Amino acid sequence: MAFHAVILTLYPDMFPGPLAYALSGRALQKGIWSFEARYLRDFTRDRHCSVDDRPAGGGPGMVMRADILARAIDAGPLNCPRFLMSPRGDSFNQSLAREISVLKEVLFICGRFEGVDERIIKARNLIEVSIGDYIVSGGEISVFVILDSVVRLLPGVMGNVLSSSDESFETGLLEYPQYTRPRCFENQAIPEILISGNHREVKKWRKEQSESVTQARRSDLWSLYKRKNYDKH
Amino acid sequence: MAFHAVILTLYPDMFPGPLAYALSGRALQKGIWSFEARYLRDFTRDRHCSVDDRPAGGGPGMVMRADILARAIDAGPLNCPRFLMSPRGDSFNQSLAREISVLKEVLFICGRFEGVDERIIKARNLIEVSIGDYIVSGGEISVFVILDSVVRLLPGVMGNVLSSSDESFETGLLEYPQYTRPRCFENQAIPEILISGNHREVKKWRKEQSESVTQARRSDLWSLYKRKNYDKH
Repeated sequence: MAFHAVILTLYPDMFPGPLAYALSGRALQKGIWSFEARYLRDFTRDRHCSVDDRPAGGGPGMVMRADILARAIDAGPLNCPRFLMSPRGDSFNQSLAREISVLKEVLFICGRFEGVDERIIKARNLIEVSIGDYIVSGGEISVFVILDSVVRLLPGVMGNVLSSSDESFETGLLEYPQYTRPRCFENQAIPEILISGNHREVKKWRKEQSESVTQARRSDLWSLYKRKNYDKH
Repeated sequence: MAFHAVILTLYPDMFPGPLAYALSGRALQKGIWSFEARYLRDFTRDRHCSVDDRPAGGGPGMVMRADILARAIDAGPLNCPRFLMSPRGDSFNQSLAREISVLKEVLFICGRFEGVDERIIKARNLIEVSIGDYIVSGGEISVFVILDSVVRLLPGVMGNVLSSSDESFETGLLEYPQYTRPRCFENQAIPEILISGNHREVKKWRKEQSESVTQARRSDLWSLYKRKNYDKH
């Protein structure tokens, strides 16, 4: 049972784009996931194939029309979560990536311009999701981010190896520093402990490093982590 | 004086990818920005062109080698900020997008696998940056996000029109809801106020809407906003 993504977009040719490479590209070829990039202008009914119009009440830019989006959404699939890429949405994170990765089908709507007509959000139960506190020119870039992070979690893609990055986000800590050969690089040696062969000490050191980097860089994650660990006792 | 991005990657063919379309694509054709996608394997010296090795101290995955990265970085440009795409980095946001958009040159390093050897970060003064709290399979996806958000801010790309989304992130509030024709969509009308022609009332309504959606969805932004506005009085 493969994972299937339907993407509503003004730029269907953008896909699969970067997702044709590396991990996600091999998974696409193997049929672990598939997609349909659906062209929004195919759902217009005027000579100019216009999908947008000026914002009611004035202001810069253009707004995507609810009626066009409704027709594109109603082409199916009908019983799957529908995500609208939007800076006003809930923050996309690793746990949402995991939730999406167990679904069979998902629909993504790529906004462009000044956003979409608000009425479509309620009318079609759209879930607004944001990849971060910045503005990209359209939702397509956000769909690349979401699909990339979801596809690598699908069974068979990473060979079921939990990477230490996933582990970090599960424990709520940032990753510990990594080192590899050469043993000495520009007069900096790999920390002794890592080549000691003492697995228990390596594990302890890595945990301390993760904790100190999280505390220094991300007070938000650090507070959550401390609370969670306090609750355990 | 155009904006130039150098991208260190294992997948140079991924670029410009989605950035060849729409706003960023037109800006690329006009020469408003340019890029070089530099292939990391060109800087290897062994028969297998290997760029990575096993993590010191054990663990899953592979780590990118400091010596290979150093050679690729040292190929220049030498006097520009160097960003390493990393989930441990500072969060990328709209204000960092603005800072980058006034630079002449920027270097981006795309990690893959379990990350890069920690020693290269200090040795070459890398600025770690993260696009969000999720794991993508490589830094290339993050570079698309950053370049897309930076390019739309370059002079001449958006025709110097400040979009309401930018405005939202400047004021610290999420966007107000947008509407456009048709006036009635599935029995939902556009709010009366927006077609009243009373600009002052429209402005007031939009501000209230922005405030209430921010308060409901993003308590973090809402606290900052209240504090900032309190300080003004």
